[in-house]
Amino acid sequence: MFDFRIQSSEGLARAGTLTLPHGEVSTPAFMPVGTHAVVRGLSASDVRRTGAQIILGNTYHLHLRPGEEVIQQMGGLHRFTTWDRPMLTDSGGFQVFSLQGLRSIGEHGVEFQSHIDGTSRTLTPERAMEIQWQLGADIAMAFDHVVPGQSSPAAACEGMERTLRWLDRCKARHAELVNGRTDGPADGESLAQLGSPVRLSACPPVHQTLWPILQGGIHDELRLRSLEGTLDRGPWTGIAIGGLSVGEPKPVMHRILEHLESHLPREIPRYLMGVGFPADLLEGIARGVDLFDCVAATRNGRHGTAWLPTGRVNVRGAALKGSTGPLDPTCDCETCTTYPRGYLRHLFVVEDMLGLRLISIHNIRFLVRLGEQARAHILNGTFDGWSREWLGRHYARGD
Amino acid sequence: MFDFRIQSSEGLARAGTLTLPHGEVSTPAFMPVGTHAVVRGLSASDVRRTGAQIILGNTYHLHLRPGEEVIQQMGGLHRFTTWDRPMLTDSGGFQVFSLQGLRSIGEHGVEFQSHIDGTSRTLTPERAMEIQWQLGADIAMAFDHVVPGQSSPAAACEGMERTLRWLDRCKARHAELVNGRTDGPADGESLAQLGSPVRLSACPPVHQTLWPILQGGIHDELRLRSLEGTLDRGPWTGIAIGGLSVGEPKPVMHRILEHLESHLPREIPRYLMGVGFPADLLEGIARGVDLFDCVAATRNGRHGTAWLPTGRVNVRGAALKGSTGPLDPTCDCETCTTYPRGYLRHLFVVEDMLGLRLISIHNIRFLVRLGEQARAHILNGTFDGWSREWLGRHYARGD
Repeated sequence: MFDFRIQSSEGLARAGTLTLPHGEVSTPAFMPVGTHAVVRGLSASDVRRTGAQIILGNTYHLHLRPGEEVIQQMGGLHRFTTWDRPMLTDSGGFQVFSLQGLRSIGEHGVEFQSHIDGTSRTLTPERAMEIQWQLGADIAMAFDHVVPGQSSPAAACEGMERTLRWLDRCKARHAELVNGRTDGPADGESLAQLGSPVRLSACPPVHQTLWPILQGGIHDELRLRSLEGTLDRGPWTGIAIGGLSVGEPKPVMHRILEHLESHLPREIPRYLMGVGFPADLLEGIARGVDLFDCVAATRNGRHGTAWLPTGRVNVRGAALKGSTGPLDPTCDCETCTTYPRGYLRHLFVVEDMLGLRLISIHNIRFLVRLGEQARAHILNGTFDGWSREWLGRHYARGD
Repeated sequence: MFDFRIQSSEGLARAGTLTLPHGEVSTPAFMPVGTHAVVRGLSASDVRRTGAQIILGNTYHLHLRPGEEVIQQMGGLHRFTTWDRPMLTDSGGFQVFSLQGLRSIGEHGVEFQSHIDGTSRTLTPERAMEIQWQLGADIAMAFDHVVPGQSSPAAACEGMERTLRWLDRCKARHAELVNGRTDGPADGESLAQLGSPVRLSACPPVHQTLWPILQGGIHDELRLRSLEGTLDRGPWTGIAIGGLSVGEPKPVMHRILEHLESHLPREIPRYLMGVGFPADLLEGIARGVDLFDCVAATRNGRHGTAWLPTGRVNVRGAALKGSTGPLDPTCDCETCTTYPRGYLRHLFVVEDMLGLRLISIHNIRFLVRLGEQARAHILNGTFDGWSREWLGRHYARGD
């Protein structure tokens, strides 16, 4: 459980297999985002057919609706969603720090107002662990202090250091949850003494690991201190890089990844959070990243932007009118193998939600397949040439 | 082709098989409505999995978007939508007569303004035939003059008599299209001389039959004259009853159906247009109707109202919160066999379009299955008792 094996590597790029309670994940891999316990507009079987191996849920959104107690009562996030494969939950840190003006931050945690009903809520490292335990995903993420992409060294340092202090608290509470489950009293009285509302006996069987999140903004030295502090608190079964793709230029993100790479432990998976677009995946893989997530695939899909090997296309465009060809002749997704692209255009013109769904399916498949292709090339030792050529065409188009 | 065989009947209820170019339809049957060449929000495979055997498209909407030329160029409505089974297109009569204030009616046809771009358009009996030929469904409907449900005898008579005169023109133009295809010059020069824009050589292979529509409002004598006039213009492979379920009380609709029934030819299918809700299906079948269509299944689905054997339920309701049971334990649809109803509720609460789709799938399956159940009971000779009991429970609930 929580095992990671590297089958092959080429340069910094790695092809591995991550074993989780709900199945294996072949890496590099893109994870579709199911913020509200649903990948926007898609059924679990739609997502399965894209080849996605693992999906994300979000602590912030699921805490507000339907509430972790409801999901726990229904047997956990897997049974709630009918997604029976690996799942990861984000801690809610990124979301509560994005609630400008609606939140106050202290060492204890973050007080915020629900964007749904305005009620006052508190998220702390401990609560983030408890909620994620009740949700029951395979991987829980640490509760981190996220700072804007262009923060000063002082602000970035403050967020990074607090993230490390919070990591101690996350680790302690997660261990209490794990131990209560495996060694302790079934009903976790010790947790109640700690003020936790979690009743372990009500939890579905959970086998969950905790991954830390690196912070430090765009400052190499802070990033390195974040990594050192995080590894000091280990061992970990995986590690995430947070606070990137939040407004900084792409070359800065690439520099940070390169700077971190030689210091990252080789034997655990590396997850670059909130990334990305197709080129970002290849750039990340080339710098040793194993896992990615991003809403861009579904968000673009809903807006009618499809990703093709030849560049982006607006599905509403007149060029597709009356066309019987597939959206992407090289793609094996349900959308491209079933529907003429003139019909896809029509669905957007008449504003039928089937269109949003079909383009989201294609875009997710596009990223999942990019991960599969990268993996095959790494295993063949041809990743470097292939990805350079792919990116060369991509940048030549100015995408 | 266009053959109808009755396997069994019980009272007025009939179980038959309608053979169409794209397959067979076991009757009684409910036809989901795909107004814009899509059953709102559902893929063709979603619809197939509901057990639906035949779906509808609409001349008015498809003429406006994407236009019949586009669909013809793409190989017809079947290839456009990827629905490879029987299909029927409505003539647009009902839609243009619903455009209050935006249309002017004359003996020639109806001038109307597009509700999309305000452009002026004309729909005549001939154009309605040509457009439907270009769309290429198995069954085309005659262009009829629809009057409001509570129209005076004079208004209903005018609409009914015009519908008969228009039926002559529909029949003539449809025959020209059929003959041009099968006997005439491939490019149908005769049609061009008639002012038709249709180029037969550009049409996908079409095997299409034309069904007339009865009018006459709620006036028995007019209904009978409509039927007599229609049969005089036959023979037909099927016959539709239009102008019902447009505001008149249900007992009035039932009386009209009963009044017509003994005069309707037994050997062709009867299609009650725009009907209905679950009880309407059973009431119609008991009065000798074979085919139904209605948007209520998908419209209710989108609004979160699910039809259950125990009555309607609002999926947003708090009663479903946290429930792990299926929406309808007796239902075999994808929604009921896959998802806990607490998850369906959650999808509506977070306003994810997957919820609309899953309830639409259930509601369509509910009507399709009601047709299948009625058929099985007719074949067994148990329809009368079963449907009385079903309707008794239904009316006792006040649904």
